[in-house]
Amino acid sequence: MAGNSFGQAFVVTTAGESHGPANVVVIDGCPPGLAISVEELAAELARRRPGQSALVSQRDEPDVPEILAGVFDGATTGTSIAILIRSVDPRARDYEPIFDKYRPGHADFSYDAKYGVRDPRGGGRASARETVARVAAGAIAKKLVRESFGARIVGYVKQVGALTANVPEPARVTMCEVESFPDGTPNPVRCPDHEASKAMMALIEEVRSERDSIGGVAEIVATGVPAGLGEPVFDKLKAELAKALFSIPAVVGVECGSGFAAAAMRGSEHNDVFVPGPPIATASNRHGGMLGGITTGMPIVLRAAVKPTSSLPREQPTVNKAGQPTTIVTKGRHDPCLLPRFVPVAEAMVAIVLADHWLRWRGQR
Amino acid sequence: MAGNSFGQAFVVTTAGESHGPANVVVIDGCPPGLAISVEELAAELARRRPGQSALVSQRDEPDVPEILAGVFDGATTGTSIAILIRSVDPRARDYEPIFDKYRPGHADFSYDAKYGVRDPRGGGRASARETVARVAAGAIAKKLVRESFGARIVGYVKQVGALTANVPEPARVTMCEVESFPDGTPNPVRCPDHEASKAMMALIEEVRSERDSIGGVAEIVATGVPAGLGEPVFDKLKAELAKALFSIPAVVGVECGSGFAAAAMRGSEHNDVFVPGPPIATASNRHGGMLGGITTGMPIVLRAAVKPTSSLPREQPTVNKAGQPTTIVTKGRHDPCLLPRFVPVAEAMVAIVLADHWLRWRGQR
Amino acid sequence: MAGNSFGQAFVVTTAGESHGPANVVVIDGCPPGLAISVEELAAELARRRPGQSALVSQRDEPDVPEILAGVFDGATTGTSIAILIRSVDPRARDYEPIFDKYRPGHADFSYDAKYGVRDPRGGGRASARETVARVAAGAIAKKLVRESFGARIVGYVKQVGALTANVPEPARVTMCEVESFPDGTPNPVRCPDHEASKAMMALIEEVRSERDSIGGVAEIVATGVPAGLGEPVFDKLKAELAKALFSIPAVVGVECGSGFAAAAMRGSEHNDVFVPGPPIATASNRHGGMLGGITTGMPIVLRAAVKPTSSLPREQPTVNKAGQPTTIVTKGRHDPCLLPRFVPVAEAMVAIVLADHWLRWRGQR
Amino acid sequence: MAGNSFGQAFVVTTAGESHGPANVVVIDGCPPGLAISVEELAAELARRRPGQSALVSQRDEPDVPEILAGVFDGATTGTSIAILIRSVDPRARDYEPIFDKYRPGHADFSYDAKYGVRDPRGGGRASARETVARVAAGAIAKKLVRESFGARIVGYVKQVGALTANVPEPARVTMCEVESFPDGTPNPVRCPDHEASKAMMALIEEVRSERDSIGGVAEIVATGVPAGLGEPVFDKLKAELAKALFSIPAVVGVECGSGFAAAAMRGSEHNDVFVPGPPIATASNRHGGMLGGITTGMPIVLRAAVKPTSSLPREQPTVNKAGQPTTIVTKGRHDPCLLPRFVPVAEAMVAIVLADHWLRWRGQR
Repeated sequence: MAGNSFGQAFVVTTAGESHGPANVVVIDGCPPGLAISVEELAAELARRRPGQSALVSQRDEPDVPEILAGVFDGATTGTSIAILIRSVDPRARDYEPIFDKYRPGHADFSYDAKYGVRDPRGGGRASARETVARVAAGAIAKKLVRESFGARIVGYVKQVGALTANVPEPARVTMCEVESFPDGTPNPVRCPDHEASKAMMALIEEVRSERDSIGGVAEIVATGVPAGLGEPVFDKLKAELAKALFSIPAVVGVECGSGFAAAAMRGSEHNDVFVPGPPIATASNRHGGMLGGITTGMPIVLRAAVKPTSSLPREQPTVNKAGQPTTIVTKGRHDPCLLPRFVPVAEAMVAIVLADHWLRWRGQR
Repeated sequence: MAGNSFGQAFVVTTAGESHGPANVVVIDGCPPGLAISVEELAAELARRRPGQSALVSQRDEPDVPEILAGVFDGATTGTSIAILIRSVDPRARDYEPIFDKYRPGHADFSYDAKYGVRDPRGGGRASARETVARVAAGAIAKKLVRESFGARIVGYVKQVGALTANVPEPARVTMCEVESFPDGTPNPVRCPDHEASKAMMALIEEVRSERDSIGGVAEIVATGVPAGLGEPVFDKLKAELAKALFSIPAVVGVECGSGFAAAAMRGSEHNDVFVPGPPIATASNRHGGMLGGITTGMPIVLRAAVKPTSSLPREQPTVNKAGQPTTIVTKGRHDPCLLPRFVPVAEAMVAIVLADHWLRWRGQR
Repeated sequence: MAGNSFGQAFVVTTAGESHGPANVVVIDGCPPGLAISVEELAAELARRRPGQSALVSQRDEPDVPEILAGVFDGATTGTSIAILIRSVDPRARDYEPIFDKYRPGHADFSYDAKYGVRDPRGGGRASARETVARVAAGAIAKKLVRESFGARIVGYVKQVGALTANVPEPARVTMCEVESFPDGTPNPVRCPDHEASKAMMALIEEVRSERDSIGGVAEIVATGVPAGLGEPVFDKLKAELAKALFSIPAVVGVECGSGFAAAAMRGSEHNDVFVPGPPIATASNRHGGMLGGITTGMPIVLRAAVKPTSSLPREQPTVNKAGQPTTIVTKGRHDPCLLPRFVPVAEAMVAIVLADHWLRWRGQR
Repeated sequence: MAGNSFGQAFVVTTAGESHGPANVVVIDGCPPGLAISVEELAAELARRRPGQSALVSQRDEPDVPEILAGVFDGATTGTSIAILIRSVDPRARDYEPIFDKYRPGHADFSYDAKYGVRDPRGGGRASARETVARVAAGAIAKKLVRESFGARIVGYVKQVGALTANVPEPARVTMCEVESFPDGTPNPVRCPDHEASKAMMALIEEVRSERDSIGGVAEIVATGVPAGLGEPVFDKLKAELAKALFSIPAVVGVECGSGFAAAAMRGSEHNDVFVPGPPIATASNRHGGMLGGITTGMPIVLRAAVKPTSSLPREQPTVNKAGQPTTIVTKGRHDPCLLPRFVPVAEAMVAIVLADHWLRWRGQR
């Protein structure tokens, strides 16, 4: 009701502020018997972790998960799972000088308008710090959908600023291509077009040196999803996925399949032709894996537009709580481009939606 | 759970198939004392109605609403409201020859995959016919948010094919400009840029004559919404609005504020500067009225990309239920461009989200 | 949210007032492929119908159901089912003289306190008329649980006033014993102890002739329910069943298994001993078919206490809306004892809970 | 969905097993600005704590709560609240010899039937240990309803075995009378009839010495609740309260107001007469504070029947997981009578329901 839960059958509930003692996630409805280890959770959290490369925030959070409930003898029991992730490097004092000021592009003002009060340390509940809980839950969801029906969810950076990657076959991109260069060194920008990656890295360094930030687009692809997932009318899978992605901080646009490009197309060129099975498939995938909001068995293809980081290490004009003009410099340790760390969060949300709809489908069929 | 309800405090539940006897909507949670007449419902339904102009489907549905419950002496009682809209022109026989074939771009195949069975008459539950129930509920939601806090929700066609309207000030567009030309004649394309309207009309006529269809983009603007609506984390208002719009048939993309254009921007150019109040506002509105998923009091600006109509009155290759190749010609009476009739549906969904979050906000504060 | 829906996977939403034009029920989440006919619905509605015997209200409602959606070719499609039941004998004028007065034992006052307004015709939404929608939904739920796992749900009158039936083996009572006497004539009081039935009939006639009413207890038994249904902690099956029964008008107490008698028992006499399987069972059934809120495979046994009808055809002191003393005589056609018509409503609610938890169980396992 | 959450506007989600590392509760929807301290939580937890008197379980759990999120500067922020309670005295080894055996009266068998696996240490998720999380959430709910509208929720033991307390005016019982004897010494049995208390204490000691257990009844009274809370039809306040109480382990019956005694009454003696206001009230309170499931402003009076503790420190026959006959002695440290520690749990659940419906009411009005 108050917005801190997601899903109906695989239900994720989170709590935690940017600079509070911990983030917590409770996952309710996970089937029993799924093997889960702290190491698996930690591996996904490491992909989202600040400080993982020179391109991202240098806040030093090891993000060590502790499983408090719902797992016995290394496997889920079917009851609610609780995971705790303590904060160790909050440095709330960085924010004290600006407690009273509204950071441009942030939720300080809107939270005050909503609640009358707020936790002003680094964005409180509105901080992207909360996504650590999503990634922990997503690690379980990913494993559930992989073990249940072989789903594979891969996200990557498609665009940074005006630089767009060339990814001719989204459904063939591997996690390895996203995370590493051919020589095995980590690819900090998470773009499978390695030429573009280098340009993106240079661009991100450039905006950082100019004390600025830059936006971008991520693409998330889910393959191996059986036909038939999603609900009619309001809970179409495309609608749930759009909500899931739009719920991530800084997302300002979502499209699936052809997306906005479909606006300029004719039906005769947009319709994907069905081809004989089994299994029945389509010759092309402009529909992005869903028709009528229900999966067709073709790869699910989504893109999310992410705005440039709002926190800038430069002086910006703004107002304070009393409505008077002032200026602000945000001193926290921020990402000049959100996209590299956005990828695992987006994957997590897609996994949670698929896990939820898988269980919903099983219930009715 | 099974996808036919929307909202948590203002809850809309619908039922009805394209060629069944009726569509029904139950609205639960509407505050008591809101004056509602059948005429108000009928006025909104008329905007969505097929047969309203030469540009749209010629199916002849008067769409007369009957209020069955929840309204006494012309006003809501606070208990559940039920509205019935009978179908009078189903012509299900148009579909009999294709019961066994999968229409390209439609949900026939994915519904079969999901349920094993389906109502094959004109798309059954997956047909856009179900949006009649959304518009009826939206009429009540619109009135609630208008009477409660003066919200005004205006949608219009922003793009058809490659033709893009010039709408310099979205928050100033009036319903009158959208619905009519300056001489008072109806504007069947619902675009406030009247020059663009004429080009769009010509384009739609052209694709129709070529037995084809065309996509487009609608923009929906809500003004008068107070700061503070929306929930943190998963139920951010932007996420709920994205889900609401993506739940409408044929929507393949949604963006708010700067949207996908933000990907190419720097933080220093994207951040909207706060300006002193009261009330505190922003000098620009690239954030589209929401920060951290919570309203700022600035106009909410959304865009939805709509794919070209999948039903085409021409032969298309496809497969039948057995997976064998065949061809199909859809004979129903379809819109060559969905956008003009999409506008009132999109407005309805935005109104329902705002009504829901208004009640949720009141509950907690 | 606003109380007019029940269930999470098999979701029942209702609307309709005592003297409005119709009652409506939408059922969302029913699996596809379940054969449903109007005749099956009508048969259950006939058991609840007023006017069915001399013992009950003489309001003449045929209660003819119309299926508007969700059923095609005689079977459910998996999408939302809508059923309409028009009212034909409202006689709202009976209530006009008392629109302004608070009937003792009724919700007139509390609804005014809640909503500020209310539909005063015969109780409006608070009337037991709404249970017609529950019985229609329950007919589908009953069929679902019978076809899915052979569940049989039988309710009967256990007590009227001080008269208590002797039902030594609740799990062996048949619908036939409840509905009819051995000679095949209908048993209007729905008690399988036929000696007690006659005394109950006489008692009900006596209170009616004295322009009074009488309370009672119904027992509802579900057999054939597999072990493992129900959820931990808050959604224990016993909790959901208690809510379901307590949601029916006039219910003031619910117990399962040993119920209140357990308060005076020792653990050594209350614990049911497990006996070797397969299937594992218990030698006795003081636990009423659920342990830890989850079914054991033993019969589910519930009892509901129903208060005496509040509407009395005699003068009672009360106050009017202005808070001034007055007197009232309710002229509607009321049941002197609610129990006989309560039985099918209670069965319906038990069926809905079992259907819901069956689907929830399937989703997670 | 999977049963570990309760409420719609004040939503409580819990996780934790009897012998796991911790119990966790997340509370979503609490209004901002409510002062909450760890001490207030600890005070309520102390009332539920094992080891608090010679009458109850001697497991030594200090139950120290840690607030992880949702509270800043000593007050709620409106975002989700997380509370952690670590376990310090699990002694899981007590249970190892019986991991494979089904304890009579416990959920071991039904959990195995449901999930196929379970945490066998002390009942796992089915243990009454989970109620620690309810009490922590209830402490916040109690404070919310007290500060919002002056509600006072007092529970006490009404019956132990055949011993029934004489409590002539439930609405006048004070917490002090329940918790202490007139001389200020703690009343370990929590019964405001102090003569009865002593007999109850003796009875509990007697059953303990006989290695047995005994059942009982608790009465919970809420005063100061305004007229108008509760929802129509399915979410009647009586139904929600019944579910809340029935969700507590060992509850087998719930009644409100006259309860099962109403079955033997006539309408003319049961109806409570309205008396002129302001505020309008009733001369008697057989309706227990709710009519039509909505509060009247009169005290809410509920009773819950609690079965005798199923764990007995004596040999009992049972079966093992393979279905073979065996015997069992439960060695954990158990309460010979659950009632004294049940009282704060029942109060917590009543508080949570009232908090939830208060917020729901505010949302709609």
